[in-house]
Amino acid sequence: MPHPVTLFTGQWTDLKLNVLAEKARAFGFDGLELACAGDHFDVAKAKNRKYCRSRVQMLEEFGLKLWAISNHSAGQAVCDIIDLRHKSILPPRIWGDGDPEGIRKRAIKDMKLTADAATNLGIDTVVGFTGSPIWHLFYSYPSNNPRDIDKGYANFARKWTPIMKYFDAVGVRFALEVHPTEIAYDIVTAERALKALKGRESFGFNFDPSHLFWQGIDPVNFIETFPERIFHVHMKDVMMRKDGRRSILGSHLDFGNPKRGWDFTTVGRGSVNFDAIIRALNHIGYKGPLSVEWEDADMNREQGAKEACDFVRRIDFEPSKSLR
Amino acid sequence: MPHPVTLFTGQWTDLKLNVLAEKARAFGFDGLELACAGDHFDVAKAKNRKYCRSRVQMLEEFGLKLWAISNHSAGQAVCDIIDLRHKSILPPRIWGDGDPEGIRKRAIKDMKLTADAATNLGIDTVVGFTGSPIWHLFYSYPSNNPRDIDKGYANFARKWTPIMKYFDAVGVRFALEVHPTEIAYDIVTAERALKALKGRESFGFNFDPSHLFWQGIDPVNFIETFPERIFHVHMKDVMMRKDGRRSILGSHLDFGNPKRGWDFTTVGRGSVNFDAIIRALNHIGYKGPLSVEWEDADMNREQGAKEACDFVRRIDFEPSKSLR
Amino acid sequence: MPHPVTLFTGQWTDLKLNVLAEKARAFGFDGLELACAGDHFDVAKAKNRKYCRSRVQMLEEFGLKLWAISNHSAGQAVCDIIDLRHKSILPPRIWGDGDPEGIRKRAIKDMKLTADAATNLGIDTVVGFTGSPIWHLFYSYPSNNPRDIDKGYANFARKWTPIMKYFDAVGVRFALEVHPTEIAYDIVTAERALKALKGRESFGFNFDPSHLFWQGIDPVNFIETFPERIFHVHMKDVMMRKDGRRSILGSHLDFGNPKRGWDFTTVGRGSVNFDAIIRALNHIGYKGPLSVEWEDADMNREQGAKEACDFVRRIDFEPSKSLR
Amino acid sequence: MPHPVTLFTGQWTDLKLNVLAEKARAFGFDGLELACAGDHFDVAKAKNRKYCRSRVQMLEEFGLKLWAISNHSAGQAVCDIIDLRHKSILPPRIWGDGDPEGIRKRAIKDMKLTADAATNLGIDTVVGFTGSPIWHLFYSYPSNNPRDIDKGYANFARKWTPIMKYFDAVGVRFALEVHPTEIAYDIVTAERALKALKGRESFGFNFDPSHLFWQGIDPVNFIETFPERIFHVHMKDVMMRKDGRRSILGSHLDFGNPKRGWDFTTVGRGSVNFDAIIRALNHIGYKGPLSVEWEDADMNREQGAKEACDFVRRIDFEPSKSLR
Amino acid sequence: MPHPVTLFTGQWTDLKLNVLAEKARAFGFDGLELACAGDHFDVAKAKNRKYCRSRVQMLEEFGLKLWAISNHSAGQAVCDIIDLRHKSILPPRIWGDGDPEGIRKRAIKDMKLTADAATNLGIDTVVGFTGSPIWHLFYSYPSNNPRDIDKGYANFARKWTPIMKYFDAVGVRFALEVHPTEIAYDIVTAERALKALKGRESFGFNFDPSHLFWQGIDPVNFIETFPERIFHVHMKDVMMRKDGRRSILGSHLDFGNPKRGWDFTTVGRGSVNFDAIIRALNHIGYKGPLSVEWEDADMNREQGAKEACDFVRRIDFEPSKSLR
Amino acid sequence: MPHPVTLFTGQWTDLKLNVLAEKARAFGFDGLELACAGDHFDVAKAKNRKYCRSRVQMLEEFGLKLWAISNHSAGQAVCDIIDLRHKSILPPRIWGDGDPEGIRKRAIKDMKLTADAATNLGIDTVVGFTGSPIWHLFYSYPSNNPRDIDKGYANFARKWTPIMKYFDAVGVRFALEVHPTEIAYDIVTAERALKALKGRESFGFNFDPSHLFWQGIDPVNFIETFPERIFHVHMKDVMMRKDGRRSILGSHLDFGNPKRGWDFTTVGRGSVNFDAIIRALNHIGYKGPLSVEWEDADMNREQGAKEACDFVRRIDFEPSKSLR
Repeated sequence: MPHPVTLFTGQWTDLKLNVLAEKARAFGFDGLELACAGDHFDVAKAKNRKYCRSRVQMLEEFGLKLWAISNHSAGQAVCDIIDLRHKSILPPRIWGDGDPEGIRKRAIKDMKLTADAATNLGIDTVVGFTGSPIWHLFYSYPSNNPRDIDKGYANFARKWTPIMKYFDAVGVRFALEVHPTEIAYDIVTAERALKALKGRESFGFNFDPSHLFWQGIDPVNFIETFPERIFHVHMKDVMMRKDGRRSILGSHLDFGNPKRGWDFTTVGRGSVNFDAIIRALNHIGYKGPLSVEWEDADMNREQGAKEACDFVRRIDFEPSKSLR
Repeated sequence: MPHPVTLFTGQWTDLKLNVLAEKARAFGFDGLELACAGDHFDVAKAKNRKYCRSRVQMLEEFGLKLWAISNHSAGQAVCDIIDLRHKSILPPRIWGDGDPEGIRKRAIKDMKLTADAATNLGIDTVVGFTGSPIWHLFYSYPSNNPRDIDKGYANFARKWTPIMKYFDAVGVRFALEVHPTEIAYDIVTAERALKALKGRESFGFNFDPSHLFWQGIDPVNFIETFPERIFHVHMKDVMMRKDGRRSILGSHLDFGNPKRGWDFTTVGRGSVNFDAIIRALNHIGYKGPLSVEWEDADMNREQGAKEACDFVRRIDFEPSKSLR
Repeated sequence: MPHPVTLFTGQWTDLKLNVLAEKARAFGFDGLELACAGDHFDVAKAKNRKYCRSRVQMLEEFGLKLWAISNHSAGQAVCDIIDLRHKSILPPRIWGDGDPEGIRKRAIKDMKLTADAATNLGIDTVVGFTGSPIWHLFYSYPSNNPRDIDKGYANFARKWTPIMKYFDAVGVRFALEVHPTEIAYDIVTAERALKALKGRESFGFNFDPSHLFWQGIDPVNFIETFPERIFHVHMKDVMMRKDGRRSILGSHLDFGNPKRGWDFTTVGRGSVNFDAIIRALNHIGYKGPLSVEWEDADMNREQGAKEACDFVRRIDFEPSKSLR
Repeated sequence: MPHPVTLFTGQWTDLKLNVLAEKARAFGFDGLELACAGDHFDVAKAKNRKYCRSRVQMLEEFGLKLWAISNHSAGQAVCDIIDLRHKSILPPRIWGDGDPEGIRKRAIKDMKLTADAATNLGIDTVVGFTGSPIWHLFYSYPSNNPRDIDKGYANFARKWTPIMKYFDAVGVRFALEVHPTEIAYDIVTAERALKALKGRESFGFNFDPSHLFWQGIDPVNFIETFPERIFHVHMKDVMMRKDGRRSILGSHLDFGNPKRGWDFTTVGRGSVNFDAIIRALNHIGYKGPLSVEWEDADMNREQGAKEACDFVRRIDFEPSKSLR
Repeated sequence: MPHPVTLFTGQWTDLKLNVLAEKARAFGFDGLELACAGDHFDVAKAKNRKYCRSRVQMLEEFGLKLWAISNHSAGQAVCDIIDLRHKSILPPRIWGDGDPEGIRKRAIKDMKLTADAATNLGIDTVVGFTGSPIWHLFYSYPSNNPRDIDKGYANFARKWTPIMKYFDAVGVRFALEVHPTEIAYDIVTAERALKALKGRESFGFNFDPSHLFWQGIDPVNFIETFPERIFHVHMKDVMMRKDGRRSILGSHLDFGNPKRGWDFTTVGRGSVNFDAIIRALNHIGYKGPLSVEWEDADMNREQGAKEACDFVRRIDFEPSKSLR
Repeated sequence: MPHPVTLFTGQWTDLKLNVLAEKARAFGFDGLELACAGDHFDVAKAKNRKYCRSRVQMLEEFGLKLWAISNHSAGQAVCDIIDLRHKSILPPRIWGDGDPEGIRKRAIKDMKLTADAATNLGIDTVVGFTGSPIWHLFYSYPSNNPRDIDKGYANFARKWTPIMKYFDAVGVRFALEVHPTEIAYDIVTAERALKALKGRESFGFNFDPSHLFWQGIDPVNFIETFPERIFHVHMKDVMMRKDGRRSILGSHLDFGNPKRGWDFTTVGRGSVNFDAIIRALNHIGYKGPLSVEWEDADMNREQGAKEACDFVRRIDFEPSKSLR
């Protein structure tokens, strides 16, 4: 069986969930990856089984299923050095008075609740971010003290170990979206994050090739390096504009600015080799959803989502018997 | 006439200047680009003409000349968000009690003194860094408010305009080394920095291709975009290790770690096309020094410096009559 | 809204317009870009409003619209050094007795009439060629006197300024198809042509990526350099056969000869990145038609035209709200 | 034995031959390829054996030898459509009153005299151009009538057959420098030119990789295609500036303008693989000189010539026994 | 007319022919290329016209046609050095007691019978392998004696000349699938094999780009080199995994192992340029079938076959009139 | 300290050792890697300490040192399927009557004696080949039974374990030159060979980048994969001739034939990145010799050896302190 194709709802939180669900079905998706934002899913009600059941039922009304939920923003606040930008991504119940340590505590609690939500929704995967206390040190000038990098990973382990214990207790896995600004953003740092958590089995990755490719990483290499840790998959593409003038670093320009050296695109329009990714996922036995995270600053959102769904169906394939 | 070839002394401050000067002469250099560090040049004595004269005389004893001095660390403190890493690069007279605003004031004063030093040394070019209040926002998650980027440039302009006015008053130019962690690190940001300073003519660039190349920028493009602003030139090379596993972002690994996606090398051993750079510099009429900034974590320093000097002499050439 | 998709009729003048219109509709096109040739459009009748209206009506009968007309051959005769090859592309009313100066005068008149035709057809864009008095000097041996190149542009300006004044008077724009054999065939020469006409706003370009790509030019660069001047767009592709044996210059071989180093293809089968072109067109706010100029010497014409129409519809997309 | 290394004097006709000879020896060359221009060699005196002997003796005084002489400009006039540019490259005795047919006759006579010169100089190779009656038709718009191309080759054969008969009679070979603007400029046209002359054995090529490489041709392919026809070799390099903005066609810009898509360089500084060329020349048994045609608009001429001589000596090598 | 699209049945011999025929029709194929294996075609009954007719009729029942049959395994045994691996590919009637010379005789007879089968099936093309007595010498250590290679080709000629005489007698062509392990596996060896058979016209090739591409050969080159010898075409694709770790030689790993440097894929998913192949086939006037040989170790067989059929129909096109 | 540079004598066995030693010294080498062939070293005398001492003394007379000896041919006979080609590489004392099992026994004995020789020469490294019982199965048609590959490795382990026990007993390491035709020829097979020998520590590799590069393997990857197993290093280069016509497999053509897809070259003239190799060797702490194995079928041997020695000295460098 090919993989189910889902739509991540994080880019659609301006729409009510029922409105989006109807559209998603019409676009051709099999399910949604619910973002914990807007009215899509309210983490504050995670322990309310009836609420959780109602979310699932609403999806079922539209013929959609659920395999994972996502909470990127609360996870981000767990390890980040908090600044005003976080206010725009956090719900008031986490931001509160804006005191960093209070935010951090509430964010940790929110992540635990997200695990509860998964349980009550009948699923076992939470996708999200971890934040990073050392991301801003990515270029070493003034020179980084290597021990500060070590401390960053220790700090991450201190913050996330209790969360992961809770996940273990309720039987839910956490899938970090490997991504710049996070504790893991490439193969080396993903290895180091796993090591910091002593290889805890419930901590794995949401594989999103778009964040790896522009760094020069072959996404297939990531899958081959972490075959046991691919808990969830985002289908997002990236286009390179390497012309000798544009910088790979983005020039402090927003996504969508054509002067950037790269940008996200509707899956299938960029440079990522998705056929190779499907093969690698089949080789490691990944059976979960292929979740379209639609981001393409140039394109009409609805045309893009439908096109992405069609593309994923076309490029995905049922593995040969020996791989099933 | 080909260009003079100098050695930047920033990587050699563990040696007394006279020791280094003797070596540099033996390596084959025409002069030194003095770093304001170690005993190479003491900015605190910038107004002491006798001291300044003594520095020039020492170089002359070894048959060396001076075209520029550099003060990267004080410049860095002008716009950076100060943290403990700065303590390791700043002299105690600037770091003081570590209070950021005090540091900033003293750093600004230091830069003005560096301009005085240039005057007293009989030269007109100071190379250095500016720092950046927004470098840490290079990836936009949580999303940058574009106005925060605008404010960063405004902040830069506020801090550096008084410094540049002082430079103008004493007839000295400032050459920012375009570099990640600085207000300008690529073509787009260099344009924006110039605009922030309203195109002030005494603010230009220390062109160093190594910082541009790994970002995917053709260094020749930089020269062609800013023909009037190339005030000084660093000769440094970079090797790429793009193998689909290593990240262009460096993986929070130190220079010299072979798992990095790129690293600096002795000029001539990397991937930068220096023949094209010499041609472009001749086309814009650059007559200043080609200053070797030797950084190659794998290599013996003295072998490297000599090899670099030889390479630069071999690749440089006298322009045709029509370009002289 | 995505762009309308039209078919340029220049490769179909062996068919009566009504026959072609029926086919074009069946292929899926929204309209035609009428060539001033065959019975498609007779410039001699440009001032006859009834004739012009009848052309529009015929298109409407087939559900087709008109956004632009084209007159390549008369334009070519305006600046070219006339030889016998021109006889085969010019109608007798322009060729006349073959005297170059007479031809030139009649060609100029024809271009003015084409502007009248546009007015009477209710459109504001004429696509065409300019010819070039210096094309044959493209390689400088015996060495070109640079002043002869200057004179060529002056000559062009002298011939085309009166035509463009007429265009201005009747409110019609001229879109030069940037193309080898024309006064502008790349970015540098397009800049120079604009300068020769002192930046006259009604003179712009018919962007056709196929003519740029084989020269090594990224078509997106052309759009970014002339955002205000893209008046019309041809969708034509080109395949490269760079194998170390075939020359980029074509070896004096006809199109369709597989020994050539490159050849035109049905859009979507060559090497041009049309996704990037659509993005760039949307960024500059281009709302006009995407006009398929079908040329593929290897392929059945009708299969090709249909395939091209399908491809353009698939690759085109509605821009995001911020770009509309 | 490695090949002798000579300097083509065409770029140095502003210097008296004795002045140049002294320099060439100091640069390290083994001999000169005399251009029939300036005082280097006067074709009008070709039948004067004493004059010819005196030229050879002058070279010998400086320890230099002669393997070939060149007459590009007269050859060019044989087939070209004459225009004013030719006045600048032709001596008055050929240009005369500027009447094309008179020029052509005198040019043909000059080429025959050049063969006599070779005989009297004790050598058997004349390098030169042929001109081309069809070069200006290189892009087919208005469409070329293929028969016009055929006629161009027939015309070439008509003009050059009598010249070649004369060459045969005096036992001298003609080496056409395959070059844009000539009857042969790539592999296809070189084959066609040979066919037009019915494979006459005394007509071959002066192999110059720089003219082939920018067309996308691998120069080694040329050698492998015409192993019996490589009569002489020019060592000239070319740098590509393919950045998506510059055109391969040169944009009607002079050599030396950095906006061009490519330019000639001192041998060893461009992109041509000369190691592969030496191997291919050894494989076909070429024993003649490697003649540096120094053209590099950016560089001091004397530095360039010396550097080129050094490079050629370094890259050339003695073939293995089995190839000798 | 585009080409008919067939399915080679060699990968489906586990299915009865009628079962496969029904599927193939549903996938969209026009016909089958019958493998002489399973119940698809029994060479032992080749002279039985009724049997042969019944095979054709069965295809016709499902709306399928026949253009060629294939006998790879018997052909392989003609020239190979026989070992136990051959037992698994040969039918008992050929393997017999396993004595190499007996096998060889029976294999030769089988190939002649296959020609008879073609005649009785009303077709003129047999596809197959030849085997090779020298394949194991492909790397020369211990050094090959060049005469041993010569002998290998002589041996091949000795074995295959009688077979080809029989083919000539019954009016059938043999199409060797150029492939590693065969006497011809690239352009050079294909030329040598033809020469060994003195250019016999009934000996040509089954063109399969997948076997050429991973060797670094452009498949179009093969077609252009042997325009008269392309008797049949396989559509099979290959993906490269060149990452600096995987070897092009396959590392003694089975197909389907992701550590291999390359592998076969469903046509359209690999790196072969099939548009260029269709053009080249049209240029040489190939009118035969495009036969999908489906091999993709990662993929469900039925999904793959259907996808391949769709792809071939989409990429194939009717040639322009001048090529028909 | 940079590495010593030695010359492998295997390509010079036509010269007496004293003649070669004098040349090698003149070329600039620090030592020789003696081949067990010609009069360079006679394994039959391995236990004769006086003979061994005399070899070392002869080298010392010419100022040369010894770090390793090589015995490729005897090693090859240990695992290979013997055929007549082996007669040309084996000394009569091993070939004997040509009976494979006898040859194998004598070859095994010879390898043990070579270990004795090393001891008596005062060195600890023997370079050589292993042969391979499965090399001829490199392409799987008729399909390989994976167990036959397994058996091949088991066979290798059975043959080489006793030899390696002997090496261990006398304290000598064996460095297999990873090479097509051997049990290990790429990264995957090298891993498998080590596993077959259960990771025996005295079995490692003679790293020769030329054999890896043409297979598409980045030689640096090999070093990084086996940091503990690089016992010796050959400096040999390879040139690629990928032009879409030549096959990577060599077309059964001898080295030196320009129709091959690749060939060996004097180090520095091919495509291998030796700067990167030096860095990687320094990173793993390799202190042994860089041994030039000169093979370049196009070039004069003595010119090549000298050029190679100069190149290796230039590219090698003393590591930085942190790596020493």
